[in-house]
Amino acid sequence: MDHTLIAILFSILISLIAFGFAAWLYRWVDSRESENAKIASIADLIRSGANTFLKKEYLVLAKFAGVVALLILLFLPTPIWKGTWTSNLIMTFAYLFGTVFSAFAGKIGIFVATIANRKTAEAALQGIRPSFLSGFRGGAVMGMAVVGASLLGVSLVFYLTKNPTMILGFSFGASSLALFAKAGGGIFTKTADISADLVGKVELGIAEDDPRNPAVIADNVGDNVGDVAGMGADLFDSHVASLAAALVIGFAIDEITGSKNTILVFVYAALGLLSSIIGVASAKMGKHGNPTRALNTSTYVTTALFTILTGIATWALHFEWRIYLSAIIGLLVGVIVGIATDYFTDDSKPPVRKVSEASESGPALTIISGVSYGFLSVLPAMIGIAISAFAAYKISAPLGIADNLEVEYALFGIAMAAVGMLSIVGMIISNDAYGPIVDNARGLAEMGDLGEEVIAITDSLDSAGNTVKAVTKGFAIGAAGLTVISLLGAFITEVNAAIDEHALAIPKITGFDIMNPAVFFGLLIGAAVPAVFSAMLMLGVNKNAERMVAEIHRQFETIPGLKEGKEGVMPESDKCIEIATSGALKELIPAGLIAIVMTIFVGFIGGVYAIGGYLAGNIVSGLLLALFMSNSGGLWDNSKKYVESGHHGGKGSETHKAAVVGDTVGDPFKDTAGPSINTQITVVSLISSLLAVLFLMYSLF
Amino acid sequence: MDHTLIAILFSILISLIAFGFAAWLYRWVDSRESENAKIASIADLIRSGANTFLKKEYLVLAKFAGVVALLILLFLPTPIWKGTWTSNLIMTFAYLFGTVFSAFAGKIGIFVATIANRKTAEAALQGIRPSFLSGFRGGAVMGMAVVGASLLGVSLVFYLTKNPTMILGFSFGASSLALFAKAGGGIFTKTADISADLVGKVELGIAEDDPRNPAVIADNVGDNVGDVAGMGADLFDSHVASLAAALVIGFAIDEITGSKNTILVFVYAALGLLSSIIGVASAKMGKHGNPTRALNTSTYVTTALFTILTGIATWALHFEWRIYLSAIIGLLVGVIVGIATDYFTDDSKPPVRKVSEASESGPALTIISGVSYGFLSVLPAMIGIAISAFAAYKISAPLGIADNLEVEYALFGIAMAAVGMLSIVGMIISNDAYGPIVDNARGLAEMGDLGEEVIAITDSLDSAGNTVKAVTKGFAIGAAGLTVISLLGAFITEVNAAIDEHALAIPKITGFDIMNPAVFFGLLIGAAVPAVFSAMLMLGVNKNAERMVAEIHRQFETIPGLKEGKEGVMPESDKCIEIATSGALKELIPAGLIAIVMTIFVGFIGGVYAIGGYLAGNIVSGLLLALFMSNSGGLWDNSKKYVESGHHGGKGSETHKAAVVGDTVGDPFKDTAGPSINTQITVVSLISSLLAVLFLMYSLF
Repeated sequence: MDHTLIAILFSILISLIAFGFAAWLYRWVDSRESENAKIASIADLIRSGANTFLKKEYLVLAKFAGVVALLILLFLPTPIWKGTWTSNLIMTFAYLFGTVFSAFAGKIGIFVATIANRKTAEAALQGIRPSFLSGFRGGAVMGMAVVGASLLGVSLVFYLTKNPTMILGFSFGASSLALFAKAGGGIFTKTADISADLVGKVELGIAEDDPRNPAVIADNVGDNVGDVAGMGADLFDSHVASLAAALVIGFAIDEITGSKNTILVFVYAALGLLSSIIGVASAKMGKHGNPTRALNTSTYVTTALFTILTGIATWALHFEWRIYLSAIIGLLVGVIVGIATDYFTDDSKPPVRKVSEASESGPALTIISGVSYGFLSVLPAMIGIAISAFAAYKISAPLGIADNLEVEYALFGIAMAAVGMLSIVGMIISNDAYGPIVDNARGLAEMGDLGEEVIAITDSLDSAGNTVKAVTKGFAIGAAGLTVISLLGAFITEVNAAIDEHALAIPKITGFDIMNPAVFFGLLIGAAVPAVFSAMLMLGVNKNAERMVAEIHRQFETIPGLKEGKEGVMPESDKCIEIATSGALKELIPAGLIAIVMTIFVGFIGGVYAIGGYLAGNIVSGLLLALFMSNSGGLWDNSKKYVESGHHGGKGSETHKAAVVGDTVGDPFKDTAGPSINTQITVVSLISSLLAVLFLMYSLF
Repeated sequence: MDHTLIAILFSILISLIAFGFAAWLYRWVDSRESENAKIASIADLIRSGANTFLKKEYLVLAKFAGVVALLILLFLPTPIWKGTWTSNLIMTFAYLFGTVFSAFAGKIGIFVATIANRKTAEAALQGIRPSFLSGFRGGAVMGMAVVGASLLGVSLVFYLTKNPTMILGFSFGASSLALFAKAGGGIFTKTADISADLVGKVELGIAEDDPRNPAVIADNVGDNVGDVAGMGADLFDSHVASLAAALVIGFAIDEITGSKNTILVFVYAALGLLSSIIGVASAKMGKHGNPTRALNTSTYVTTALFTILTGIATWALHFEWRIYLSAIIGLLVGVIVGIATDYFTDDSKPPVRKVSEASESGPALTIISGVSYGFLSVLPAMIGIAISAFAAYKISAPLGIADNLEVEYALFGIAMAAVGMLSIVGMIISNDAYGPIVDNARGLAEMGDLGEEVIAITDSLDSAGNTVKAVTKGFAIGAAGLTVISLLGAFITEVNAAIDEHALAIPKITGFDIMNPAVFFGLLIGAAVPAVFSAMLMLGVNKNAERMVAEIHRQFETIPGLKEGKEGVMPESDKCIEIATSGALKELIPAGLIAIVMTIFVGFIGGVYAIGGYLAGNIVSGLLLALFMSNSGGLWDNSKKYVESGHHGGKGSETHKAAVVGDTVGDPFKDTAGPSINTQITVVSLISSLLAVLFLMYSLF
């Protein structure tokens, strides 16, 4: 245990360094100048709107978490009348710990983002370089806090319990909160965004961030609660889940063979975070003032550092090179998926161009072509994930030959490919949180009348944010894919451990045969779940947007002088925030619950084999839909921007109107449903592992 | 073999009766009065357009079939240097036989449909009842011909070769042609439909079938080549494939145990056709003049007859009741899937209503809500298919206990569930071909100035066609789902037979374990294929439609008097037909090939286990996307009609414009991509079975 302890302490140390660095970044951002009173007042509105939403959301989620904690106390990891109440109590604490850490990550993100937005806007008065740095460092606070919290949490839970199953509990806490945070935030942000666009851009033809539009503040709040807090919770959850899967499988192998897989997981994870810290610290804008380049350079620095540092560690600590290779393959595939995503969403590449061209014939062809390219974009990513899983399996399996643990090692290899892919997640989050911050900054610059030049700077920062965002989303989906494949391995480990522990008269699970009718039954139903889940989220957005559109119409009709932009007449933004908040909270629970309930339904009907099929179906169709929706959404967004930059008739043309329809359809695709599917898959995988014992004991077939 | 021979002869007899009945129906339709010269001239245009397209399409396909036939001669069922050349020659003939039968079914359909359309239009002058009967009996010619040809072909091939593997060859011939016929027809019809709508309805605000619009004739041609010929080929292929799968598995069991599963398959199939004949013959419109009711009543008659007749046969011939039950469950689930589809596409139910309401806020919300309901609609159908496969498996497996053939019997049960679901396909096709006939009739009535009353009658017939069409599409998808599950069983049977035959040193396949990396690799890639396939078809439609829209604009701008509707000025319809034809032929091959090439790629990389996963992934994601696209397309169509009937502002309102965008997006969803996916899945399954030996011998891993 000695070496393991050192590895854990090393992880904790690096987490603390990350927190320290985050604090330094925060103070740096906060000490930037800001003196514009108008901007301050609007920024305050955004900040208080975001905090109000978060408070209400967390209140709802606290109740939910309370109920789940009670259920865990009674049933998990073993029903209280069959096992020991202490392990249930520990599991309950691990779960609650996970929810709190996840909530904390979201809270930190919002806290900094709502300061960094105005700093970034005003820094643009001094030029693009200080402005870029404000935005980036603001986002990096979130990146450091999220990954630091993840690594710290996992390390502490493992240190205290010495039981990786408890990390599944911690991970489930993180995921269940992330599911709702992503869904709730996603509904909020797109309700506001769509409504603001529909009335503002489409009906009245006013600018995106025109202060007369009552939904504009809500839209800015949405950027924070959806894209910052939601996305942070999402990647927090993926990171924790990948570590949990790797630890469950790696620890099980260690127990048998005395190998040092557990140590390896902690060392690699810590080195990933360290690489991200250095990558963030090294970020600066070059002479060309190209923000996309600056973001990408930091990412490459991080990637290279991780490859080198883990290589050295593998050499020095005598880890298995095959596992190292698996992790690096995971990282590489992440980059490939990112590049493929970029191809389909970059406005210098054919897909965006063609969709813009199709828009000349009206919105129907915008949609058809966008859906088509979205479908096409699925292939490279799916092949990439398939090959990396296959390669990691084949590379790692031979390690188990001596002890008849080939499958276990193979699954550990896949889990490490996921850990490898997610190793640079600190950097990814920094890049990703940068997006909504500069988006907000752009809005503030416009509303605060900072002038055309400043708007142009924030525009260029914003555009880089969009490009990077598409790539990081592809990364997140790929990572979720590998993580859940390895969680399938964790599920088998859990089931077989339960068979041993309770001396059940059931043969151990070696796999899930598609020709087994229970597996196939699960496969079909599991595949339907992400579609239903997405549908419920989008219908939530639709319902909510209809209400908000009605409210905006009411304000323009009844508030005298608002439409004309009379001096001193302000819209009632709080009404819109209120609609977005209450609607999001109403809609998020059913969508999240359906995924959980279907899992429990399939498990108790068809047993563990049905669950195996269900997870596979869920993964496959979840990846498919998540990639499709995220990519077509990003494509439509950039196609609209491409038209707005003067092509095919430019702003105000019929082509532009058609492109705006595509963009609006893409909004809930890319920011509500698509990225939430990741979390849905992870949650379903974790529940399955946690309920494994119950499904074993009490299923119908 | 005696009893088997009798069963085969009985099948052949019933097929011949079906042909005789089809001939009688044709003569009945042809002898209806038709005297309107204007209608005659337009009908001739449609007829010759359809024939031209078919001729060109078949020319392209003949070349394709020639190449494939050559490949079969060289490689299948065994490479010519490893097996006997005679069996390769027989397989080649079986394949060509399949393509010819499939082409024949399509040709018959077009031949009758392009007569029945004008008969139906003019019969409407005498009232709704004769008009309905003309349309229905015209469609029924196709129904009888398709199922008669399928049963006759399968019977003959089996009679001549005594080898069910050859039926796979016949089935592959049918499917490969169907794939391209469906894809080509689907691209043709939607190119014309979308272009006609975009310029006619959206830009100029003229009526759907306004004779000034140069794309209207092409649109009517498209109804025939896409919906009649394409759909006929599609269901021909599903029917053949379900029989092929059942015969491969059933025959293998018979060989071992001497049971009479082969006989049962032929008897059930023949009784299904007999039930459809009686169902069609009994069709008449009641006093209420309600066409939907008339269509549904015939379907129920057929279903009830099948249940009774097969029950009697099972009792008299001592078949297994468990197999009977599996078949009836399949039929039942077909009905349930149909009802679920109906719920999501019927304009008296909430989904259509809500989408219409959402259209008030513009086209973006039309699309988002339609996509959402389309996603939701997937769940009941997937659960239905999952439960029926599970139930058929569990019910049939015990039959194999004595001989250790549980899995084989279970798979045979699933295959029989598919046969049961498809037993009433003669009726389904009749209903389905009725749709485009009355749709054409409506157009002819409008272009031939038959007056408001006649248009109203044809409108009501058309609307019934749409309702029924949505249901039959659900049916077809469900059946394809079950068929391909059983083809997975046929694949295993083929692989194991090959292992025996060539005395390969490989363990026999018992199933496909998801945790096997090759299987998982296949699963992920297989899932991506239907998305890519759909995308390519839709992009084909898009590209083509852009060209046709440009042509229509050109005609309106350069032909003097066309826009104003000056007497005697006719648009150049042939130009539009030419564009649709050449475009469809250009686009159909790559889309079809990608599915075939990916299968071969995965098979030669990952071997038979990867193919097992690939097929499962393909089935699961294919069903998901096919259901989603067909249902959301149907929903948008009916939502537009609902608005047109005076709700939410009615025709010409902004809501209507938004609804038309939904309808246009839905067109390639429901008539090009969605239904083609069925065929894609079947083709891929058949190729896999046929290439099983090659994948066994020459794969990389």
